[in-house]
Amino acid sequence: MSDPFVVVGGDAAGLSAASKYMRENSDGDVVVFEKGQWVSYAHCGTPYYVKGEVDRLTDLLSLSPEEAAERDIGLRREHEVVAVDTDAETVTVEGGGERFEQPYSDLLVATGAHAVTDPIAGYDRDMAFTMHGLDSAAAIRAALAEPGEPAVDTSIDYVDADLVEHYAAMEPPERVAIVGGGYVGVEMAEAFRAHGLETHVFQRGSHILKPFGNSVCEHVADQLRERDVELHLNCSVEELAGGDRVEAVVHENGRLDVDLALVGIGVAPNSQLLADTPVELGESGAVAVDAYGRTNVDSVYAAGDCAEDDHTVTGEPAWVPLGLTANRAGRAIGQTVAGDPEPVGGVAGTAVVKAFDLEAGRVGIIDHDDARAADFDPVTKSITAGSRSGYYPGNEPTTVSLTADRESGRVIGGSIVGTDRAAIRIDTLATALESDLTVEEVERLDLAYAPPFSPVWDPILVAAKVLRGELD
Amino acid sequence: MSDPFVVVGGDAAGLSAASKYMRENSDGDVVVFEKGQWVSYAHCGTPYYVKGEVDRLTDLLSLSPEEAAERDIGLRREHEVVAVDTDAETVTVEGGGERFEQPYSDLLVATGAHAVTDPIAGYDRDMAFTMHGLDSAAAIRAALAEPGEPAVDTSIDYVDADLVEHYAAMEPPERVAIVGGGYVGVEMAEAFRAHGLETHVFQRGSHILKPFGNSVCEHVADQLRERDVELHLNCSVEELAGGDRVEAVVHENGRLDVDLALVGIGVAPNSQLLADTPVELGESGAVAVDAYGRTNVDSVYAAGDCAEDDHTVTGEPAWVPLGLTANRAGRAIGQTVAGDPEPVGGVAGTAVVKAFDLEAGRVGIIDHDDARAADFDPVTKSITAGSRSGYYPGNEPTTVSLTADRESGRVIGGSIVGTDRAAIRIDTLATALESDLTVEEVERLDLAYAPPFSPVWDPILVAAKVLRGELD
Repeated sequence: MSDPFVVVGGDAAGLSAASKYMRENSDGDVVVFEKGQWVSYAHCGTPYYVKGEVDRLTDLLSLSPEEAAERDIGLRREHEVVAVDTDAETVTVEGGGERFEQPYSDLLVATGAHAVTDPIAGYDRDMAFTMHGLDSAAAIRAALAEPGEPAVDTSIDYVDADLVEHYAAMEPPERVAIVGGGYVGVEMAEAFRAHGLETHVFQRGSHILKPFGNSVCEHVADQLRERDVELHLNCSVEELAGGDRVEAVVHENGRLDVDLALVGIGVAPNSQLLADTPVELGESGAVAVDAYGRTNVDSVYAAGDCAEDDHTVTGEPAWVPLGLTANRAGRAIGQTVAGDPEPVGGVAGTAVVKAFDLEAGRVGIIDHDDARAADFDPVTKSITAGSRSGYYPGNEPTTVSLTADRESGRVIGGSIVGTDRAAIRIDTLATALESDLTVEEVERLDLAYAPPFSPVWDPILVAAKVLRGELD
Repeated sequence: MSDPFVVVGGDAAGLSAASKYMRENSDGDVVVFEKGQWVSYAHCGTPYYVKGEVDRLTDLLSLSPEEAAERDIGLRREHEVVAVDTDAETVTVEGGGERFEQPYSDLLVATGAHAVTDPIAGYDRDMAFTMHGLDSAAAIRAALAEPGEPAVDTSIDYVDADLVEHYAAMEPPERVAIVGGGYVGVEMAEAFRAHGLETHVFQRGSHILKPFGNSVCEHVADQLRERDVELHLNCSVEELAGGDRVEAVVHENGRLDVDLALVGIGVAPNSQLLADTPVELGESGAVAVDAYGRTNVDSVYAAGDCAEDDHTVTGEPAWVPLGLTANRAGRAIGQTVAGDPEPVGGVAGTAVVKAFDLEAGRVGIIDHDDARAADFDPVTKSITAGSRSGYYPGNEPTTVSLTADRESGRVIGGSIVGTDRAAIRIDTLATALESDLTVEEVERLDLAYAPPFSPVWDPILVAAKVLRGELD
């Protein structure tokens, strides 16, 4: 009998690969090592669990361990792969009180990413959190509940009951600090405000949601302020001060007493497992792969938040750790390993975020420095137009920003922000970017028009018209 | 001084052309002849005016006669062009008690379309309407009001006050018939139900909204029934019976007493003005034009609902009378006539419609007979998936149908129906069609994912995945 297909990491990419592999090859043999308890969960749903809009932690599971077993996936939870030997084609596994070598025929490294906390001292205190994984979501929700209030169901197998009970017993916070104004910061501000907490967001630079570009940043900052979130811009946090428990945020301009701190300053790829192997990492520190998710070493693949992808716009490797591309790359690799090669697809950097009533989307290359680094000559125009016909109820201002390369006229990036179905419109731009459309071609798209849904000239068309005027 | 640019018809295409021409060429001379009182109005908004969601008829104007004057557009309302002489390069105009010849340097025919009523006898009775133009919208709204109730502001210059007062004086209807289950029928059913009227829709064939394809048709029919609209499918209407006023609909299966009848069985292009000229019409009966909106005769252009366009998918001429393409073609022609040639752009047949809480969109070639006529070998798959992450509040089933050509794999058409932001998602497919994407390319689009807006696998991606399975 041949060696199994071994997958390291049981989240989106890993279990998508294992599932697809077994669907393609029902006689196949796949083993998934997951160092934690949780598998295949919706990371992006965790802020809404903390907010209380999602009731149960298990609602966030895409595939339960039981379902994995039904698919004949050899899932080994609480088994950590601690070393990879690409010459011997084995991995070293620790788990169940044992340490053993597991040979592989093909290997998928899908170890994900981790929340960065490094520059923030005092992160090990109680009531200091990141938002990475279901355990931290459970802990935060428990921390927000009054002692004795059953906020988290600890009867579920996978929950870290000790952690939950630890926080459930503590006095809930009244004032919280969020360190970092990215996705996590914005979504968690909404969650904390839903619990009535005084909420402060500290952002080192001047822009909330910087990857979305200036026009979105300003709208989101305004929205947060309107919802009584206090923004501390251009303000680096140095330390979470206190005793066992966080008591204050020490920042470059002073100190703010808080009862809870959430650190959301970024994530980094979990690629250290491959540090002593010949597998090459990219500039980002994530694993470099080809169009099929293959590393430079035979039979070794990487996918998800630990791996790079080809960027649709630049054609260059990029590290964009998001959910769809992890699922898609995993599935493609499962199919490839099963014998039917399938490209993992590129990333366009499409992202959407909700900030209270505001919706924002972004795609492609927006930052002009990034654009120039990719040899584009970027030109950006922003417009605000109605989301529906002006006379129709519910029409709301929608701001679209488009960036194009001056010479070729190609659209290389864009963003949308508004309150009326604004976010989902980014898919139109994502499709345009993946098709290499020029501004002129976007301007002539036959987009939908009906008063309840869009004005005659959709905001995207208006933006293209204005940008084209700038290019001509 | 040279002859002016003459435009026949002062609606979307005509006034867009005149406006753009003057913007490009402020010394220019443009004359627009409009046979009626109204110019540049939002035809698609009229059902919502009747419904009462839009307050004033003037809210539906895109450009008022006063604004046209400010732009130095020589707008002549109540002036009808009754003949065109392309040899002499003149048009014959009747208006203001005169009949005169107007020479032109360039001519744009933008005469629009008219509602077809032909096969329905008795259409000339009171309380029989079509939904074409602001006068019919005003008349219907007046007819729905109790006598004495001031439903329509007749102090506005352009309103046909006699018509409005005629209907305002009549007893309002209790039971209404809509003849035709297309856009107008569906939108007007919602409008009539909003007034609490017993509403019947008669459809000759078996499908409501046939151009949207089967999966949409069934959902819309269900929605109408849920909202107490009675559907009479496979039921041709022969006559609107009565005396001065409509009293009954006579149909192939019997007779239904009604107090009002709305006929929405289709529109036809107003191309008869060119019947005695060398200007060629297409198979559709609309004016044949090239990529710049030029007819076969020098200096004569046509745009809007009276003209054909190139279909994005087939590359063949098509007659798709809708608002955006009329505006866009008009604007392009204005620019071309001003000396800076601009293509009018193709039509993808993108359309969206609201039916109470349901939203539907369609694009491209959906009907298999149409597809085969355009030399495609059509394959269609429909799926239903969530509009948001399954655990997130507001997630609603969304049905996507995709049609592709079996040999090339190219996506040639699609539809979407659902209650949660379903319609606007059609823009993604419209962009994919205009970019000639294959099913495989659509499956790998990097579309947006965030729990409040879309599941990991957007319904469009799911549809592409399933259709690709069928093609492989």
